[in-house]
Amino acid sequence: MKRKDEVIEALEALGAKILQEIERGENPSLEVPIRSLSNVRYNPETRMLELGSERAKRYFFNVAHVRKFVQTVEAAALSKELKEVGKHLSLREAFYRMKRTLPGSDINLVDEQEESNQAIEDLELITNLSREKLHFNANKMGSVAGKVVIEDKGDVVDWSKLGSGGWSIPSNVEEIVFKEVKARFVLYMEKAAEWERLHEDRVWERLNCVIMCSQGQATRGVRRLLQRLHLEHGLPIYVLTDFDPWGFYIYSVLKFGSIGLAHISEQLAIPGAKFLGLTADDVERYDLKKHFIKFEEVDLRRLEQIAKYEWFKDNKEWQRQFKLMKQMGAKVELAALSSKGITFISEHYLPEKLRKQEFLD
Amino acid sequence: MKRKDEVIEALEALGAKILQEIERGENPSLEVPIRSLSNVRYNPETRMLELGSERAKRYFFNVAHVRKFVQTVEAAALSKELKEVGKHLSLREAFYRMKRTLPGSDINLVDEQEESNQAIEDLELITNLSREKLHFNANKMGSVAGKVVIEDKGDVVDWSKLGSGGWSIPSNVEEIVFKEVKARFVLYMEKAAEWERLHEDRVWERLNCVIMCSQGQATRGVRRLLQRLHLEHGLPIYVLTDFDPWGFYIYSVLKFGSIGLAHISEQLAIPGAKFLGLTADDVERYDLKKHFIKFEEVDLRRLEQIAKYEWFKDNKEWQRQFKLMKQMGAKVELAALSSKGITFISEHYLPEKLRKQEFLD
Repeated sequence: MKRKDEVIEALEALGAKILQEIERGENPSLEVPIRSLSNVRYNPETRMLELGSERAKRYFFNVAHVRKFVQTVEAAALSKELKEVGKHLSLREAFYRMKRTLPGSDINLVDEQEESNQAIEDLELITNLSREKLHFNANKMGSVAGKVVIEDKGDVVDWSKLGSGGWSIPSNVEEIVFKEVKARFVLYMEKAAEWERLHEDRVWERLNCVIMCSQGQATRGVRRLLQRLHLEHGLPIYVLTDFDPWGFYIYSVLKFGSIGLAHISEQLAIPGAKFLGLTADDVERYDLKKHFIKFEEVDLRRLEQIAKYEWFKDNKEWQRQFKLMKQMGAKVELAALSSKGITFISEHYLPEKLRKQEFLD
Repeated sequence: MKRKDEVIEALEALGAKILQEIERGENPSLEVPIRSLSNVRYNPETRMLELGSERAKRYFFNVAHVRKFVQTVEAAALSKELKEVGKHLSLREAFYRMKRTLPGSDINLVDEQEESNQAIEDLELITNLSREKLHFNANKMGSVAGKVVIEDKGDVVDWSKLGSGGWSIPSNVEEIVFKEVKARFVLYMEKAAEWERLHEDRVWERLNCVIMCSQGQATRGVRRLLQRLHLEHGLPIYVLTDFDPWGFYIYSVLKFGSIGLAHISEQLAIPGAKFLGLTADDVERYDLKKHFIKFEEVDLRRLEQIAKYEWFKDNKEWQRQFKLMKQMGAKVELAALSSKGITFISEHYLPEKLRKQEFLD
């Protein structure tokens, strides 16, 4: 119940502030932190991308501001309604819900989803509550299995007893309660096919862990679920991606956050996450050069960008990986480990890497 | 156990035939149905896209044939190994597993995944068994909830007791056993966000059904799961997509099959599936013109293609929809129903359409 109050309180405080300004005969205003690149910085203390302190003030009686002002207030009203009736909307549904025509005019409150999305992001910034807590959902994607029991919507779900499919991760994991966490760590991988490999081989049972995947870039629901297991239950998060710049980028976003979501890093980033592979050393050790996928120009550019990231540029271990990848001029997929044996990744690669604690930080 | 025998039998028969030819001093050969467009036809009796009777013979002692011949035999050997050890591989993993260098040469058995994929498809055609039964998995995607209890890998999973996430649908659903099917029909939708709407509103409980989604085009696992519920338990399958040519295409593939997978229609297509919406009539009735998304050139072209499909061209109801859409020159999303109310789709739209039995066939 406490969580509900936090949201209602924040929304009511926002409404009360505006009402007060109206009653005082002042020009109602909203103060919103600026989300542009110039206001995003990497904080070496917290090891996260964060929003700086620049803020903008938006006034109701200002033709340049009024549209955004009203949209943000509408998002707040919709969030309060959703909270009160206990429902959630996807961003797309919220767009249609907010796209109403103002009475006595032919003006829509929002015309494009970009507008409602930004209003919701502004509301996140103003209230310091994530979109999910405000009852707006992002995409649903991903699966999980392992030694954890949760309670969700009145159901008790044991992630270790769900057959070959596993639990389908919802877009919003704020209200999940962890009932029993026997797992000692989490293996996160970018590909569902890899997850099915590890699940069929019952890696979560043998290694006493949780296995989780999204597809490509992790969804917010997946990131938040990883973060909650990490923060609330102290589980280490180990990230398993291909040996390629895009895999490294997936790891980077999970760990340090991203520019686009810098305002919400605290609720998504996992500075304690570690990279478990695939590395250049694995490519040598397991003789995977035969399975090189040659770099395209775009891969090289991406690698060079990543190598310059503030959080990587003084990291010797990572710089060594970037250098070796550049020398190889090629990527290697985790799936290439199948060439060593059907279950090689589950029975050799992972146990060995974990035993030797071969993580990159 | 019967299912296991079916696969091993087919693979052993294939091996025995080749061995026999070798012992007799004949040129070993494989007979494979041709998968080109010219050999695909629509069968109005079964209402499915099917492969015609054209076949090609491939010989071992033929420089133009030998590579494909050996690849197909390798796929068969790998399938048998997988079956015997009770494991599955994704197509990508299978590619790496088959990409071995022939002893005493620098020739790889396969160089590109396209080659191993085709070898596996050939094996499907030769054995008349789906890739999934041969232990090769496609993509994993999609969620399900509702009044069904299954047994899978020794776990009993109740699809109605999985919190907000639902069951994550595996890539391979061949070995799932339906223990209890109380649901009276299945609602299939293309978007996960729509699924979350219906799940939060507990539509499957109110209407006593199953709700299932993939994302975009349905995966093979999802299609096969729908088909099994339809054929083995007589559940009607109702398809819910946006009012747009791509939504209609998703329905068309689910129901009649697709050209690329015509050889496996029997194991994927669901001729009994029905379209539940969104229709042009819904757009009128629920006053959704305000939410028109104007056609691009590419939408119009797709619509015109679909309108000419053999299975739609004499269907008056569908032709009427195509004509109305063309007149509107616009698409409308299911999510636009949110403009009528947060739970409008769950509490009004669906119950009304189902009560009136407003299906398109």
